[in-house]
Parts: sequence; structure tokens; C-alpha cells
Amino acid sequence: MTRQAAQPTPFHAVILAGGRGTRFWPRSRKRLPKQFLPVIGNRSLIQQTAERLSALAPPERLWVLTNEVLRLQALRQLPQIPRAQIIAEPVQRNTAPAIALAARLLLEQDPNAIMGVFPSDHYIANPAVFLRVLRRAVQAAEQDRLVVLGIPPRWPETGYGYIEFPVGTQSRGAKPAPVVRFREKPNLRTARRFVQAGNFYWNSGMFVWRARVILEAIERFMPATAGVLERLVPLADRTFRRSLAENYAACDDISIDYGVLERAKNIVGFPCPDFGWNDVGSWDAVYNLMPRDNQGNVSRSPIVVQRSGGSYVDAPGKLVALVGVKDLIVVDAADALLICHRSEAQKVSALVKLLEAEGLEGLL
Amino acid sequence: MTRQAAQPTPFHAVILAGGRGTRFWPRSRKRLPKQFLPVIGNRSLIQQTAERLSALAPPERLWVLTNEVLRLQALRQLPQIPRAQIIAEPVQRNTAPAIALAARLLLEQDPNAIMGVFPSDHYIANPAVFLRVLRRAVQAAEQDRLVVLGIPPRWPETGYGYIEFPVGTQSRGAKPAPVVRFREKPNLRTARRFVQAGNFYWNSGMFVWRARVILEAIERFMPATAGVLERLVPLADRTFRRSLAENYAACDDISIDYGVLERAKNIVGFPCPDFGWNDVGSWDAVYNLMPRDNQGNVSRSPIVVQRSGGSYVDAPGKLVALVGVKDLIVVDAADALLICHRSEAQKVSALVKLLEAEGLEGLL
Repeated sequence: MTRQAAQPTPFHAVILAGGRGTRFWPRSRKRLPKQFLPVIGNRSLIQQTAERLSALAPPERLWVLTNEVLRLQALRQLPQIPRAQIIAEPVQRNTAPAIALAARLLLEQDPNAIMGVFPSDHYIANPAVFLRVLRRAVQAAEQDRLVVLGIPPRWPETGYGYIEFPVGTQSRGAKPAPVVRFREKPNLRTARRFVQAGNFYWNSGMFVWRARVILEAIERFMPATAGVLERLVPLADRTFRRSLAENYAACDDISIDYGVLERAKNIVGFPCPDFGWNDVGSWDAVYNLMPRDNQGNVSRSPIVVQRSGGSYVDAPGKLVALVGVKDLIVVDAADALLICHRSEAQKVSALVKLLEAEGLEGLL
Repeated sequence: MTRQAAQPTPFHAVILAGGRGTRFWPRSRKRLPKQFLPVIGNRSLIQQTAERLSALAPPERLWVLTNEVLRLQALRQLPQIPRAQIIAEPVQRNTAPAIALAARLLLEQDPNAIMGVFPSDHYIANPAVFLRVLRRAVQAAEQDRLVVLGIPPRWPETGYGYIEFPVGTQSRGAKPAPVVRFREKPNLRTARRFVQAGNFYWNSGMFVWRARVILEAIERFMPATAGVLERLVPLADRTFRRSLAENYAACDDISIDYGVLERAKNIVGFPCPDFGWNDVGSWDAVYNLMPRDNQGNVSRSPIVVQRSGGSYVDAPGKLVALVGVKDLIVVDAADALLICHRSEAQKVSALVKLLEAEGLEGLL
């Protein structure tokens, strides 16, 4: 025990980067989805994620779970991470198998490893506060707990799951608190009630736990996935990729929330203080995150404006002229141009489905 | 006289093509203005104009007055016209000197020549009716009259001049009628009165007269311009271009309307039947001239639409996705993208002035 205190448990960060981000079409493509785009600032969201985590997890303890199409992009954008730690799922499964696989690989390196799980496509305005919370979460995880980070809700969002804490739970000090229940995406009325109640937090999709502890839970609740892990050869083995390809499809296609968290008993939550978390869910979210000019426009390109405001413009290499228009999303690509009312920014994914249905594969 | 009846007076068509058409930015540029663009159909407006007139004036009797920057484009687009008849004004003057110059050059070829004057950037939906009217106008011009074509007004336009005919004048039969007065661009109230009165017609900018007769009027009302014509060497002379360059600037900078028509006595008007004349004054005019799809969109590019209608889209080589937007003009070019509410399409020229003021010469 004294040895552990002197030499803290190694923290590994696992970044989940298999998403498609269709709401960011036409910029986001199958081969270059949202997490690999510089939608906020000059570096991509995954680069910002890796950089933010580097204070706790240097590159040799960073892991990326992605798919075969995106692995090349991840290698390009994250050259600091050892290549073997950028892992492609042979087929798409949900978050639980990806996390289970990562846990299994970490465990090969270190039986005491703590792992944090992080989406690759979120934005955090205040990394210092985030890191302070994360350090506390790591301490809680050392007690063999499954730690879930909750975000104080800023509006009655119906697109997120919620974590219910005991009535009166406060985010001050970021102390762990028992989780009463996980709540699925609510309707608007329920979401409003959650926000007013004060003890409901957004489920951030960020988790911290010992690799060993999450694997124990997986063995208990997800035996098919556990079986796959058992059949896998070690990462260092030259047949690892083939072994993964042959076995991974047998994993449960389920999220970590449904697969483990809603069933496990050793869950603890962190009602986090507000560190400016944003899942950057649409172009409208980007508009809201970026500084506006006097007319309320946000632009990455030179614009000339007459009686026009409230718009987001991204048209590389072009001047964009807006005349008498309001609240638009304008995103120009070489082969496609999106013009969308800001209030409909969520519908862009439906648009991509439409393109898919029409067989316009080249535009996806 | 019998000889003239047997061999009709040769009709020459003079096409004025020096305009800039800034309201069609970003498609329209200094080197490729509106008249050279296929804004309606697949051929440019000037090509359509030349083709329409070819029934009365074969290529050897077609003349184009343009400027030095645009002459190359005119030569390219109108290869059927003898090169010498595509004439560049050395400096920009208004319509009166251009028409005077053309008249002088026609007269060199034929002392009896009748000339029609036509803008290069208008659209005529029903050329057969137009040609019928034009033939009658030529007959009236043979009586040494200055003939002005009037268009029956379809709305109280404040952007055009009007021709006032005697009360009760009808367009039926397209007979010439005396012109009571030319009226400058009216305000909306006056324009409404004109349209209701029924004896006010839009001044189309199309004229027919003998070259000799218009030159007599120019000598009388515009002595400076007449002096320039006197000093010019003949078109066939190899020093013609130098002679034009040295003298043309001394011409009066005035329109034919102010310079001649409002002062001459031998004017006669044609209250034309409606032959679908349109001066295609803005992108909104293009929208209104083209067939719409079920959502009321007009597009020259493939579009994918969700809850969007009433828009005009032109983005070569691209798919354009419209989501939740209405009544937009979208015109995409390599270096610029215009997004303009249809109701503000007239303001595009002000936008071009703004670009000019900001020194963005490369975009003009």
C-alpha cells in the first residue's frame, strides 16, 4: 500500500473515435468525420482531446479506438501516439465492446491500470477545471468504483441521457456521489423537470475506472464480449489483428450505458462543475461556440454583408456575400454546398440519409 | 420609288453590348458581363439577341457596339458576324454616341440603310410576335420617322422610363402612334397611375430608324458628337481604330433618350403587343423566367431539398442542399458565393460597389 501511494496508479486515456458525425456534412465525410475536423479552432476535436488529456496521460498512455477506414486519419493527426495503440475495430459495434477491448489491452501492460474513456468529438472550454475533476475521478476509481462524469445541464436537452443523483447533490468540490438511476433521453417536459430539480446531470460519456474492474463487470453482464476477449491473442502478438478480425464480430452490439452501467452496483457519479463541456452536436453548436462579429455572424471565410446577421459561414478560399439573409448555416465544399436554417441544423443527418438513399455515395 | 418597292431597304441590326450587369455578380464579371452569360437557357443573351434578329438581319448586317475589354468575348460568342462589325468604343460614353457611330458606319455601306438598335441583354419569350412588330417598325422608319418600341407594362416598374401615348392608344395591330411625351423613371405612385391609365408603355430601349435620319438629328442636337463623326476616317481605312481612339472621347456622354428622342419632332412610337419582353434585371427576374419544380425552386445544379422552396440555385459542379430556407438566390463561383434573399436581388449592384470600394478588384 505504501508503494502505491509513492508511485500512483498509471492513468491511461482511451479515446473513442469511431463516429460518423453526419450532422457536419458536407465537411464531415465517411473518411473524415467530425472528430477529425477543426470545427472549433485550428486543430481537430480529436487532436484537442488528446492534447487536453496529455497532462494526465502522456502519448504512451493514450489509446484510440476507431475503425479501419479512419485509422489512417488517426495515425496522421496523432503521430505522437504509438501506432499499435490506435486500434481499428474490424466491424462496428457499440461503445461497450470498444471499451472492453481497450481495457483488456491496458491490462496486458499494467494490471493496476486506471482507464478514462473519452469521446473524441467533444469540446471543453475550460480544460484546467476539467483536469481537476478528472484527477478526483481517478482517485475515486482507485477505490474500484465505476466513475461516471455528469455535466450540470444548461438547458432541457432531449438528446442526452441524464444521471440522477440524490436530491440536494451539489457539484461544488466535485466529490463523488451515488447514482440513483440512469435516465434515458427524456421528452421535453421531463427534461425541463430534470433541469429544474437540480440533481439531474447530463451523462457526458466520460468514464473512469480500473481496467480490471470494468472487465469484471463485462464478464458478469456481457459474457459474449468477455468470451471474445478471452480468445484474443495479446496486442504484442503479430497475429493480433487477425485474431481481432476473426473474433470481434461476436461482441455484443450494445452501449456501455445499457451493457454495464445500468446494471452494475459499484457505480459512482461525479456531479461536475461547469467546465464548458459541449458535444458540438451540430453546426448551430459551432455557431454558438465561436465569437460573433457585430452583425452576429460567425465566419471562417471573408464575408461581405448587407442587412444579414446570425449566420455561420465556412467557405474556404472564397468570399461569401450575404444580402438580406438571417440565421443561416453556409458550408461550402468542393462537391457540395449546404445552406441550412440554423434552427434546422439537427436535420442535416436526415439529409445525409437522403443522399445515401439516393445512391450519392460519392458525397458521403 | 418603284425601284425601292421592288428591292426593300436593307435592315441592319445594331446590338449595344457595353453594359456591366453588376446585378449578376458573382457570375457577371468585368470581362464577362450579363449579356455574355447564359442566364436564361443555354446560350448567352447576346447570342439569343443576334439569333432572334437574324430573320431580318443576316450576320453581314449585324453590328455590335461594345468596349475594348469585351470585344474578345463578343468575337468568341458571335463568330458569324464580320470582325470589323464588332466595334469597341475606346472610352465609355452613353448610348447616343454608340448609336451615332453605328449610324455613321452603316451609312458608309448604304445611304438608305435602316438600323434597329437593340440592347444585348434582354430576353424575349415570343420572338415571332416580336419580329412581326419589328417588320412594321421598319416600314414606319422608311417614312423617315424615329421609331421607339413601347412595351405594355405588366407592373408599376419604377426602374424604367415610360412612353406616353395619346389616351386610348391600343397595342392591337402594332400600329405606330404619336408620342405625347417621354417620362423618366417614375416613383411608385406615378408608376401605378401610368399602368392603370393604359396609354403609358415601357421604353424598351429598342429603336428603328434610317441611319441618315438619326444622324440628321444628331447633327442638330449633339454637335460635339457630330463633329467627332465628321473627323473619323471610314471603317475600311486601316487607320480607323486610331482615328476612333483619338476622337471618340469628345462625344457627348448622354443617352439617346435625353440626347435626341426627347427633343426630336419626327418621333413615332409602337405600342407593342406583349411579346414576353424582359430586361432580366436581376437574379430574381431569372428565377421568375425559369420553370420551377414542385417546391417552387429553380435550379441549374442538382439540389436536395428539405422544407425549402422559392429559391434560385446555380452552383456548377456541385450538389446544393437546402434545409429550412426560403426565397434565396444562391450563386456559386470559384472565388465567391452569393446568398441573397430574392426580395433583395436588386441590391447586388450595391454589393459590387462595396467590393470595389474595398479594393477587391479580383472579384469584379
